[in-house]
Amino acid sequence: MSTRAATPPPATLAEIDTPAVLIDTAKVEANLARAQAYADAHGLALRPHIKTHKLPLWAQRQVDLGAVGITCQKLGEAEVMADAGIRDIFIPYNILGAAKLDRLAALHEAITIAVGADSEITVAGYAARFTDPANPLPVVVEVDTGALRCGVTSVEALVDLARQIEGAPGLTFEGLFTYPPRDKAGEINAFFGEAIAALTAAGCPPRRVSNGGSPNFYSAADVTHATEHRPGTYIYSDRMQVAFGHGTLEDCALTVLLTVVSAPVPGRVVLDAGSKGLAADLAPVPGHGHLVEYPEAVITSLSEEHAVVDVSACPVPPKIGERVRVIPNHVCVISNLFDAVHLMDGDKVSALVPVAARGLMA
Amino acid sequence: MSTRAATPPPATLAEIDTPAVLIDTAKVEANLARAQAYADAHGLALRPHIKTHKLPLWAQRQVDLGAVGITCQKLGEAEVMADAGIRDIFIPYNILGAAKLDRLAALHEAITIAVGADSEITVAGYAARFTDPANPLPVVVEVDTGALRCGVTSVEALVDLARQIEGAPGLTFEGLFTYPPRDKAGEINAFFGEAIAALTAAGCPPRRVSNGGSPNFYSAADVTHATEHRPGTYIYSDRMQVAFGHGTLEDCALTVLLTVVSAPVPGRVVLDAGSKGLAADLAPVPGHGHLVEYPEAVITSLSEEHAVVDVSACPVPPKIGERVRVIPNHVCVISNLFDAVHLMDGDKVSALVPVAARGLMA
Repeated sequence: MSTRAATPPPATLAEIDTPAVLIDTAKVEANLARAQAYADAHGLALRPHIKTHKLPLWAQRQVDLGAVGITCQKLGEAEVMADAGIRDIFIPYNILGAAKLDRLAALHEAITIAVGADSEITVAGYAARFTDPANPLPVVVEVDTGALRCGVTSVEALVDLARQIEGAPGLTFEGLFTYPPRDKAGEINAFFGEAIAALTAAGCPPRRVSNGGSPNFYSAADVTHATEHRPGTYIYSDRMQVAFGHGTLEDCALTVLLTVVSAPVPGRVVLDAGSKGLAADLAPVPGHGHLVEYPEAVITSLSEEHAVVDVSACPVPPKIGERVRVIPNHVCVISNLFDAVHLMDGDKVSALVPVAARGLMA
Repeated sequence: MSTRAATPPPATLAEIDTPAVLIDTAKVEANLARAQAYADAHGLALRPHIKTHKLPLWAQRQVDLGAVGITCQKLGEAEVMADAGIRDIFIPYNILGAAKLDRLAALHEAITIAVGADSEITVAGYAARFTDPANPLPVVVEVDTGALRCGVTSVEALVDLARQIEGAPGLTFEGLFTYPPRDKAGEINAFFGEAIAALTAAGCPPRRVSNGGSPNFYSAADVTHATEHRPGTYIYSDRMQVAFGHGTLEDCALTVLLTVVSAPVPGRVVLDAGSKGLAADLAPVPGHGHLVEYPEAVITSLSEEHAVVDVSACPVPPKIGERVRVIPNHVCVISNLFDAVHLMDGDKVSALVPVAARGLMA
């Protein structure tokens, strides 16, 4: 016999037990509309990265508002989104191994999909699995513009990979993409310009030049050679985005609802989630999250199920049993921690939505 | 139509796609047996914290080997474990609010359960919900012995709470517990001794004096006043435990199997999981995990789906497509990131087990 009783989903904020994720749908809509307007105004294709929300409903909303498609970081995420009806997906990642290439082939049959590559080995794997000239797999080459993660580091290496791709009957060279460092629009644009010229001279002109990142999204138009941008975090925003000068805390659409469970000494309270609910990611601002109702409070440390908060600067500190909302440092990782999120219309719960693309590792 | 084909579970290491969690069952058995032997030799009750594994099968194994019961940090974890047959659970946490108190009441009807408290408000909540003198709820008071998280900070406050608990007809004062700082056995024991004397003098002698933590488990007997210990990490161990001088990397039973997806420049490779698979927790050793096959490698940074590895010190660095195993910095958080784990008997998969108590926030 189960000790767990079935309970109806909560209808209002007051009925939600903690810890829980709240998403202010009005703020989401405003964030999406503002970004789409910026992209439209600058003739830039918007291809949102769904890692931030992992929800088919927001992916569909992004497409409905004008996005050309979406970005997924893992095959598993792309499978969830394709099954939910999204028809154009870019996976900016090296897909390796027979099992994953078979899954990629199934996606390629079903929808428009493009994948990343930054090595001959990755391209050779694609070339061996995809052999139909009538339905070639679009491959986009990753270039490193200073983030020092993946990506070829020279125009020569880029052209070599483009030629290898174009030489494979079942592949087509789609273009190039980068995961950029922040505040380097000038350098990135210069590299893109040089790359486009070399590729065109080599007979492989790129159809897509794809830039990424939310911190630099509202300066994306400065990279004039880019044809599309892949921001993720902009949909919810978080403390890190605000610290980067990107909007205000008022724009943050996702909060974690927590309860004060302890107030052991004056000046300190403890909340009922730690790194398992807020994540340990740091931001260039003090503490592990912003308490909406207590802006002077600082979350000084997290263990797995406890957040220790210094409330000594609060005129009236929160009391045991009181509930508070926390804006996380890095919102993308929160979507991966919670199985479901509450969509909120003010204090009303409009839906309790499972995070369908959560936890998909491969 | 789904783009995802059903695949049979892997039978061998070679059939497991990455990222994946591998658990060496022989190492688990050795870690469990060693800890139980230590507890038995010192007359200490072992009450393992299941946050590390979140698996009913290991909880049952711990009890079968001699543990008096288990520790869970959240009601949801306790519900999963009770449903799986565990009969004695301690939740060292303040349980607040009507919804959670109702769930606690269902558990209290079904099994032997004890809960924590460090405030009059928490105790008042228990006292209002639990009113049957024939079946009182055991309450254990948390004391702060230097970790500066939860817990009363004086013997006087402890005695006051014990009296409040004993004064409530439906509650019974079970004793005290602490989440200790490291390497403070002497101070903790002195506090425990003073507390026991004061409680006994007040007519509330504690039945249980509970200490915790894996880093100090093999010095747990130095805290002579403790009656039980609640280690968690010892079952799998991790880089943090090894850095604390607790066993060796050979004892680490859980590894994350990853694939090298990029080698963009000499000296750097990139693996196919980042903070979503390895977690961002730091340890007092360099990097975000230990590569078993490449001990000279250092994971220098994690983004969500990429681990950047400095392999410049490796005599022969790993190649694109090669698979490596990573011992994580902090193993408990890994169990919360993966929906299922592979139990390994050498290179054979003995079971693919869902992490039943994963992601339970409340």
